[in-house]
Amino acid sequence: MPAMVTDALLAEWAKRVARCLLDRHLTLATAESCTGGLVGAWLTSVAGSSEYYLGGLVCYANRAKTVLAGVDPAILEQFGAVSEPTARALAEGVRERLGSDAALSVTGIAGPGGGSPDKPVGLVYIGAAGPWPTVVERHVFVGNRQAVREQAVAAAFRLLCQLVTGDGPGLNHAGS
Amino acid sequence: MPAMVTDALLAEWAKRVARCLLDRHLTLATAESCTGGLVGAWLTSVAGSSEYYLGGLVCYANRAKTVLAGVDPAILEQFGAVSEPTARALAEGVRERLGSDAALSVTGIAGPGGGSPDKPVGLVYIGAAGPWPTVVERHVFVGNRQAVREQAVAAAFRLLCQLVTGDGPGLNHAGS
Repeated sequence: MPAMVTDALLAEWAKRVARCLLDRHLTLATAESCTGGLVGAWLTSVAGSSEYYLGGLVCYANRAKTVLAGVDPAILEQFGAVSEPTARALAEGVRERLGSDAALSVTGIAGPGGGSPDKPVGLVYIGAAGPWPTVVERHVFVGNRQAVREQAVAAAFRLLCQLVTGDGPGLNHAGS
Repeated sequence: MPAMVTDALLAEWAKRVARCLLDRHLTLATAESCTGGLVGAWLTSVAGSSEYYLGGLVCYANRAKTVLAGVDPAILEQFGAVSEPTARALAEGVRERLGSDAALSVTGIAGPGGGSPDKPVGLVYIGAAGPWPTVVERHVFVGNRQAVREQAVAAAFRLLCQLVTGDGPGLNHAGS
């Protein structure tokens, strides 16, 4: 059963991210592949988000990952666009490009096509770079294209809040 | 009365953009300010969008506009982030960065704050660069933050389809 991620829940998460970042005077950047801008769209649904959100990259094509985020083409060739090393490089790349305190990345297979036995539809890597060792989470979300993308946004926001507030990961990881 | 832009209408526009671009083998890039990734998110709501959408920039902070899209800081200083020259520079900048056939840009004041007599809440410039002279449309949308942003996405898709199909502008410009 796919985890239900409603618009109301994403709006709540976006506000929680705002409080986490504003309380600590931290800025954020994003690098998105399968979510295509949805993380940024939810971040900027909050009035006043320009106080902490600098902007980001939508790295849909591989060329965008290398040109915009500076991902080493060898990483894409060796591990693929949907991989832990690519998620790491996206998050660290956009953080460096924009000089933000923290950065989130999302790369995955939203479906319905593009899946394989090794990398099924729903596989999503979420990276979080910041004043901490970069963290990459691997999820396999259940549901259709929209459900996978929305769960990815929620998971990214949850990971960021955990890292920023110093809470350990592992709480309420529904859908992964 | 604000123009109603429903999710269903945006989904329909995203599919229409897909057909317009696929029929002509054109690729697209985006540079978004006030929509914060919403244009990219709707483009990539369509399965198979990687065939024509390369990716884009979320240029929320002014620094992101200069660093990511190469907007001349003098343009931002002279005309402001929400202006015809900035919309033009964003669209042309991301088109050059990603080597796409076409590019859309959005910069505006979604509100509720940030408005002024000269530049009211709801003012949005939409740029479209491509194998045509760059076009920038000026809109003043009515409604709350979300309504302004969704009308901007719909207007961007409409402008792109008009330019790609060769239809002149001026049809059904509700809300502007």
